[in-house]
Formats: sequence, structure tokens, C-alpha cells
Amino acid sequence: MRALVFDRKLEFRGDYPEPVAPPGESIVRVSVAGVCGTDLEIARGYMQYRGVPGHEFAGRVIESQNASLRGKRVVGEINAGCGRCATCSAGLARHCPNRSVLGILGRDGAFAEFLRLPDVNLIPIPDSISDDVAVFAEPLAAAYEIFEQIHLARNQTIVVIGDGRLGALVALTLKGEKYLLVVAGHHREKLARLTKLGLETAEESSLRDKFDVVIECSGSESGFRRAVELVRPRGKIILKSTAAAAAEINLAPIVVNEITVIGSRCGRFQPALDALAAGKIDPRPLIDGNFALDDGVAAFEAAKNPLNFKILLRAP
Amino acid sequence: MRALVFDRKLEFRGDYPEPVAPPGESIVRVSVAGVCGTDLEIARGYMQYRGVPGHEFAGRVIESQNASLRGKRVVGEINAGCGRCATCSAGLARHCPNRSVLGILGRDGAFAEFLRLPDVNLIPIPDSISDDVAVFAEPLAAAYEIFEQIHLARNQTIVVIGDGRLGALVALTLKGEKYLLVVAGHHREKLARLTKLGLETAEESSLRDKFDVVIECSGSESGFRRAVELVRPRGKIILKSTAAAAAEINLAPIVVNEITVIGSRCGRFQPALDALAAGKIDPRPLIDGNFALDDGVAAFEAAKNPLNFKILLRAP
Repeated sequence: MRALVFDRKLEFRGDYPEPVAPPGESIVRVSVAGVCGTDLEIARGYMQYRGVPGHEFAGRVIESQNASLRGKRVVGEINAGCGRCATCSAGLARHCPNRSVLGILGRDGAFAEFLRLPDVNLIPIPDSISDDVAVFAEPLAAAYEIFEQIHLARNQTIVVIGDGRLGALVALTLKGEKYLLVVAGHHREKLARLTKLGLETAEESSLRDKFDVVIECSGSESGFRRAVELVRPRGKIILKSTAAAAAEINLAPIVVNEITVIGSRCGRFQPALDALAAGKIDPRPLIDGNFALDDGVAAFEAAKNPLNFKILLRAP
Repeated sequence: MRALVFDRKLEFRGDYPEPVAPPGESIVRVSVAGVCGTDLEIARGYMQYRGVPGHEFAGRVIESQNASLRGKRVVGEINAGCGRCATCSAGLARHCPNRSVLGILGRDGAFAEFLRLPDVNLIPIPDSISDDVAVFAEPLAAAYEIFEQIHLARNQTIVVIGDGRLGALVALTLKGEKYLLVVAGHHREKLARLTKLGLETAEESSLRDKFDVVIECSGSESGFRRAVELVRPRGKIILKSTAAAAAEINLAPIVVNEITVIGSRCGRFQPALDALAAGKIDPRPLIDGNFALDDGVAAFEAAKNPLNFKILLRAP
């Protein structure tokens, strides 16, 4: 099949082996896939991953033992747990120590014509949502994960640090759920676009007030340090971006100001799909480029441009 | 008066000026004071503090406008808020941005014959507790702070990292409140002493299992890294020790494993005093030395010995 493959370097191949589904898994034909910051990190060597990257997708089940899935349009939870360990039994397959992760760890991903995932990972897309909208379910699920981890009160002051694709989606999610917030970043053009989407924005260096909650989505090492500066005593920092490298961090202010730092990663898809179906969030204005799968390398280059929010790949 | 003073170096002085109480503050004659890890850090330059260190004390009010305090044996909350800002109004004077802190920030401390504190900071010692027990109220209040910040369930697995004075007090507090826990450290002698006090102990490097809750009390830069290794996905790390220096920290596991990190510092005194009065905790076996105030420099040297838990200073 056609696929984008990372093996020391990223390249398009026309003859990559098609996935074969073991019992309990289905084969999905990918219709559209999104390029995410993690994909760019993988292309820089993150996770020592080798294979097909990509974990944001919408597609159609073309092969399944499960009759209720066959032929259905689906999105898919990217973590595949072993189903047998204590973590899986506790309902936290996303944290299974033996898990594979679509396009990130031990499992070929979505930048290909076909992928395989366990049946339990596949979630039908509501008829009212197009594939171009549904492809945002994965990053939005990561935004909705915040609500599963902590209680955010609507009278709290909230700042999202980062005007990139992650920051934009987290901000649109909070806005969709009727929270007041500020998105802070360094890119005037992007902040202007986010302002047009109805978000309150600010040049990050201009912020002086302390916030009850700081959501770190910048993906840069300096982001955490800035979050510590911007959070009030006893406030909360939600860390959404995987800072791949070790950062030089002084932990003393975390203790002295009794800050709570909450690491936050993937979430359940259903709340995200529900929000998309209900029209609470329209992510389509964030689409900045559409590339054929064969042009995947160019799509990655486009995604590296900090002025682009979301780049999509299509396998027609 | 006689006092131990830090001004680039620590020295005993016989002629330090006595404190003068402004309106709303009282004068306390110190009977006993404890040397804490923060004092040792201050003597290394932490907080750029100049003046009398010491913040763990028991004493007697000898001068006060407040009749209900006059002549009373007291302990004292160490953070003195401005009483006017939004943080103070919210009941968080411990986090007042304009606060002074006894023996730590802008306010002479307890390693002296006399100290002054706001009346609102002074808490009478129950008759059933000796000064030698009451002097532990401050570090125990810091241990009780954990319960004010998060809900600990009694079926959670808990490890306290650090067999020093802080780790020992936190562990005794948890045991006093009927939690099951392990204290992990590197000092065989100290672990043996803690075992004799009824605590389950372990050589830290021997730990293999993951814990629901890790309480970092080691005070070493490596402690946080070890805490990240020992906590289960979605688990909690409580950071009790002020790592004065910047540590090289990789934040990625915090995000990937969705760890919550909770900075925890000073707490309210009342729960600690109540626990001491109820006999839930007996800290006296941790007393490893008694020094006259005049021998304060020697007391600091004794406190630096990692085999000593608590060193007390007396101003007879």
C-alpha cells in the first residue's frame, strides 16, 4: 500500500505491506489524517519510533469480525492496551504498560492507505459530522481530558500558553464549554486569527496578572517556566505538551507557592465527538493545508511552519 | 539579647537588639526551638536571608495588648500576611505576596531569647503537651497540610522518599492518621530507628513497585526524578522539600503518565496541635540533641549530620 514511513528519515513508499488484522482487530481505510506536533517530534527521533507515523484520522472499516463496525465511518482511540494487566482492568488502557500506540509506539499509524486497531478502540462517527471535522476528535479528546482530571470552575481565570495547533484546540474547547480564557502567544498573525474565532488573545510577554489556571500548550522548554511565573499561589498548571528534552527547572516555586502541576495527555473520544456533533466547536477554520498522501513529506514541511495550524493528509 | 545571627556567616551574639512589638503583635520568650532543613539552607545562603533564623519554637507570651494571650504558652504560625491584599482576604495569608516569614523572610526568628509575631499567629499550647512536644507543631503542620490539599484514601499505596527529619515527621503523621506507608531512604541506621517506631521502611534503591502516591521529602535534587520513577500512571507526587537549586528535569513522563505534582509547604497549626494533644504522634524519639542557645553554631553542625533527626536549641 502507499504509506509515509519514518526510518531515520521520512519518506513516501508505494509498496509498504498492508496491515493484517489479528483476532479482535479491524482494518480501516483512512480517508483523512492530521499532522500533529508529536508527529513532527517523531520525525526528529522522539520515542525512537520506526514505521508509519500519524494518529489523528477518520476512515471507514473495510474488514472486521465485528458486524456492528463493518462499513462504518470511524475514528479511533490510539492507545491499544493489553487488556489483561491491572491498569487495563482499572479501565486505564491508555496507560497500559504493555500498550502500543498508533503511529507512536509499536504500531503503524494513519499516514497510510490502511491501518489496524482493536475493535474496542473504534468509535463510529455521527452522521452529522464530516470526516474533515471528525479528524479533530483525537486532539480534542486530549483537550477534553482536562475536564476528566480536574474540576475547572467557570469563575476561575484561565490562560492557555501557546498559539499553536494544540493551544488553539484547547482554547476552542474551553470556549465551546463556556469558560472564559485568554490565549497567549508570540505570533501576531496567529493571535489575530484566533481573535477572529472569538477568542481573547494576548502577547504572552505582556501578561502581568496571575491566573488561577495555566494550561501549557507551547511545547517549548521555556513554557513550563513561564507557566510557573503566571500561576497564582495554590493555582494549577496543566501540562499538555510533551517537552521531549530535559528542561532546566527550579522546583522551589512549586513548593513555596503550593502549585499543583497536572500532566495531561490523551482523552476519551466520546466527549469530543459529542461536542463536534453538537456544534460546540468548529475546528475547520484551523485547516491550513490539504496534501495527498504521496506528498506527505511536503505536508510535514508545511506543518513545521509555525504559522500553520492544521495540515491534513488525504489518501484518495 | 542573646541570639544566633546569620549575616554571611552564622554566629552567636550577646548584644542583639530585642524585638519591639508594633500594634497587633506580641513578644514571646522562646523556651525551645528546633533546627530544620530550611535553617541549614539559609546558612548556605537560601532566600538571601540576613538576621536571626529559626521558625520552629515553643515559648511564652511576655508582652501583648491581647489579654487572652498574655502569659500563655504558645506556638506560632510563621507566615505574617499583610492582612489587606486579596490573598489575605481569601484566607491564604500563608501565601500573601507581601508576607514576612519568621526566620526566613524579613522577620527575625526563633533562635533568640525573644521574638515577635502578630497576635493572630499565636496559638496556645494545650496544657497536656510539653514545650518539647509542642515545638514539633510547625513541621507537623507542614505534614498535615497534605490532607488539606488532596484526598488520600486509606487503600492507596504510599511511599515517603527520605529518611531525614522531614520524611520521619511526614511518615509519623500518616501513621498517626492510620495510613499504610513505606518510608524509603539510604541510611540504614535511620531506617532501623524508624522501624523501631513502628514504620515500614525500605532501602530506596530496592523499590520496584509503583505507588499511588509518592511524598518527596528527601530534599535532594535526585528526589524528584526518583519520585517520577516510583509513581504509577495517573498517580500523585507530593513535593514537600524545597529543592533550592535548579534541577535537570525531564517533564515528558509527567505528561505521558498523567502524573499530578502537588507542591506542599506550611500548614495550619491546629490539626497538628490536636494530633499531638491526642497522642496520635509522639515526636520525642526524634530528638537527637539539646544545645544551649549560646552553642547554636554547634547545634547547626549537629543538625548537618544526616544521622541526626531533630536538634533543639534552648534559651534558659
